[in-house]
Amino acid sequence: MGRWEPDARGRLAKAALALYAERGYEQTTVAEIAKRAGLTERTFFRHYADKREVLFAGAGELEDLFVRAVAGAPRAAVPLDALTAGLDAVAGMFADRRDFACRRQAVITANAELRERELIKLASLGAALAETLRGRGVAEPAASLAAEAAVAVFKVAFERWIAPDEERSMQLLIRESLAELRAVAAGA
Amino acid sequence: MGRWEPDARGRLAKAALALYAERGYEQTTVAEIAKRAGLTERTFFRHYADKREVLFAGAGELEDLFVRAVAGAPRAAVPLDALTAGLDAVAGMFADRRDFACRRQAVITANAELRERELIKLASLGAALAETLRGRGVAEPAASLAAEAAVAVFKVAFERWIAPDEERSMQLLIRESLAELRAVAAGA
Repeated sequence: MGRWEPDARGRLAKAALALYAERGYEQTTVAEIAKRAGLTERTFFRHYADKREVLFAGAGELEDLFVRAVAGAPRAAVPLDALTAGLDAVAGMFADRRDFACRRQAVITANAELRERELIKLASLGAALAETLRGRGVAEPAASLAAEAAVAVFKVAFERWIAPDEERSMQLLIRESLAELRAVAAGA
Repeated sequence: MGRWEPDARGRLAKAALALYAERGYEQTTVAEIAKRAGLTERTFFRHYADKREVLFAGAGELEDLFVRAVAGAPRAAVPLDALTAGLDAVAGMFADRRDFACRRQAVITANAELRERELIKLASLGAALAETLRGRGVAEPAASLAAEAAVAVFKVAFERWIAPDEERSMQLLIRESLAELRAVAAGA
């Protein structure tokens, strides 16, 4: 097998999710994932540190994209507008990923360690956004509160997006969650 | 030793925190905690399920109190006002606990498993508050967003309250966080 495999990363992720669903996350080995994807273990480890990383690599990319968009928002933008730029940026990541996201969520929901990891990723996102806002000159506690509110908007929109009967886009659900947060905070 | 020990629970908590700080959480045993408190292991287990529970029993009590206050808010209260009633109720728990809370936080910060447990407790609080709001007739996603916002207010206020130079009460810091959240959501 050559060093370069077309979409090896995507094939590994797809194979891993299929196996996690069939056999359970704990019971699946990296060797099995590589075999199912028609690749070697060596190729697996070029793309992912371990089998857990297959599920959470996207969360790291999401945080980077979110933070960059907030940092790059116009200097005059108030905290919530800078965060909205970040939310819009990450919404694009979800366009063709609904099937993957739903299956990923089912694996995570079934495993306490993975649920904890998901919470840690969200906490890390909140901390990174607060730091980015402070970098934009936003004082505490406004920076942390705005960041936590944005994480809540993202979390709630994501939970709705992966719900069985939901067909709206992540972008639309994020916009709706943001509007609801504003309404709730305004005392609606 | 009699079956009833004056403030055995408080003495055990104090002894546990002292030992966690001196020796590290992992290295401390229940036998050592009981001995330091001048009590038996049997008495320890009448009050706490294990050594981790000493750190998180308060989080369970806080959730119960918070949920009861939100559920008991006037029927006409909007979500944020019902949650404010809950925040006010739990603020009272912190009156004389600053020293305990600071030392507890130092132990938790030093241990990854305990930090995860803290995140789980906050996520559980958010879910319980959202459910309570739905029980009050609040629709989704407003219920989840309002609940997550209240958890953010609590978390940010708590982090400030245990900061080295902070002398204001938890109640005041909660009120301030709440006002900041409103301002941020209004686009300040």
